[in-house]
Amino acid sequence: MTDQSLTRDTLEARLRAIGAERYHDKHPFHHRLHAGECSMDEVRAWVVNRWHYQASIPMKDAAFMSRCTDPGLRRIWRSRIEDHDGGVDAGGGIRRWLKLAEAVGLDPDYVASGQGVMPATRFAVDAYVRFVREAPLVAAMASSLTEMFAPAIHTQRIAGLLEHYGFATDETLAYFRQRLNEAPKDVGFTLEWVLEHARTRAEQEDAIAALSFKTDVLWAQLDALWNGYVEGRIPPGAWRPGEGLA
Amino acid sequence: MTDQSLTRDTLEARLRAIGAERYHDKHPFHHRLHAGECSMDEVRAWVVNRWHYQASIPMKDAAFMSRCTDPGLRRIWRSRIEDHDGGVDAGGGIRRWLKLAEAVGLDPDYVASGQGVMPATRFAVDAYVRFVREAPLVAAMASSLTEMFAPAIHTQRIAGLLEHYGFATDETLAYFRQRLNEAPKDVGFTLEWVLEHARTRAEQEDAIAALSFKTDVLWAQLDALWNGYVEGRIPPGAWRPGEGLA
Repeated sequence: MTDQSLTRDTLEARLRAIGAERYHDKHPFHHRLHAGECSMDEVRAWVVNRWHYQASIPMKDAAFMSRCTDPGLRRIWRSRIEDHDGGVDAGGGIRRWLKLAEAVGLDPDYVASGQGVMPATRFAVDAYVRFVREAPLVAAMASSLTEMFAPAIHTQRIAGLLEHYGFATDETLAYFRQRLNEAPKDVGFTLEWVLEHARTRAEQEDAIAALSFKTDVLWAQLDALWNGYVEGRIPPGAWRPGEGLA
Repeated sequence: MTDQSLTRDTLEARLRAIGAERYHDKHPFHHRLHAGECSMDEVRAWVVNRWHYQASIPMKDAAFMSRCTDPGLRRIWRSRIEDHDGGVDAGGGIRRWLKLAEAVGLDPDYVASGQGVMPATRFAVDAYVRFVREAPLVAAMASSLTEMFAPAIHTQRIAGLLEHYGFATDETLAYFRQRLNEAPKDVGFTLEWVLEHARTRAEQEDAIAALSFKTDVLWAQLDALWNGYVEGRIPPGAWRPGEGLA
């Protein structure tokens, strides 16, 4: 380490501060969703659009693995793809997302087709996949550290949805419940790896910027949802209420 | 041509129909801007964010040229970069954009730094540059055909801004005036090239989809502006009123 590099504790604190400042648990769409104030069409719009994010996550992880020369790192990272894709019969997180889609009255094939996803959602999510494919390895890894902040929002969401919406059951919310089991193993390893491998100040600042970028990716998705479906300015070509129903 | 391919006239009509359906002249932000209903901070937010689009255009054109094996095509396309970058002394479209920035009270160095651009703007614009770098050549070219629809909106804009805003003069609006001279030459060549080279139905549909994608890129920028600055939900890290003033 050079004189200018951050201590391990300071780097960890800087990373955690990003969650406190800009993680999407602070976005009004989430407050609305968790408080039971979303109309069913707003919930459907969220399910349709967040599908694109969910479906892109294993591609993002594959992009990361395509750059790892270390089989040990690839073996560990592979479990993320397994979590989302699962086996042919059982499926994984993606299939659990489609259970939620069904529960809110959407045709899961429509949701899975990705039709109706807002362009702004695609632009944000696709920027994330590309970032992980192209950024320095430590930064690519650090961008996934929003998982540090996810368990709190998933816990809130499960409680809020169960309290306020008829469609919410243990089965239909299985995606979020399962993430509560999966994310801690991922984040423990990744945080440790980033703290260990981001040594120079430049690498550390890259890691911090990468995590900040990722919060932008999440925030922009909710801004687009709010604009399209709470304010009712649905962009051309995006899902409209009444479309894609089961 | 195969039986399934569109006639030249039908392809041109399909391309033009995209403008009629989804070009951003239909976005409420433009109506607001041209009718003099934008506050000066809304105008500033537009100038700050659209800077990122303007500044990316010559990079987009360079990405296109980096893929052209035909020096004849490169020679013609090069004039687009010249239009935006200009000479060291005179500058071009980008420098004219900074004149507009100054006129609305912004520090041109702040605007040129790109600080304060909303993440959603970056995601959309960067998706465009990447598209042009990676899509099939005819599609990459077709994505620039929103220029077919631009003269009408530029004419409206010049008239609307001159009528309603004190900062608007021939000098500060030189960017738009100049585009009225430049765009027709570009679009004439590009439309002809696309109509000539998109021969199979698949290539034709790619060209149509590319132009539709480009309208998404433009629309998403205005949605983000509306959400951030008309509705006042400014995303973390983006320009806030009072920042970056001259």
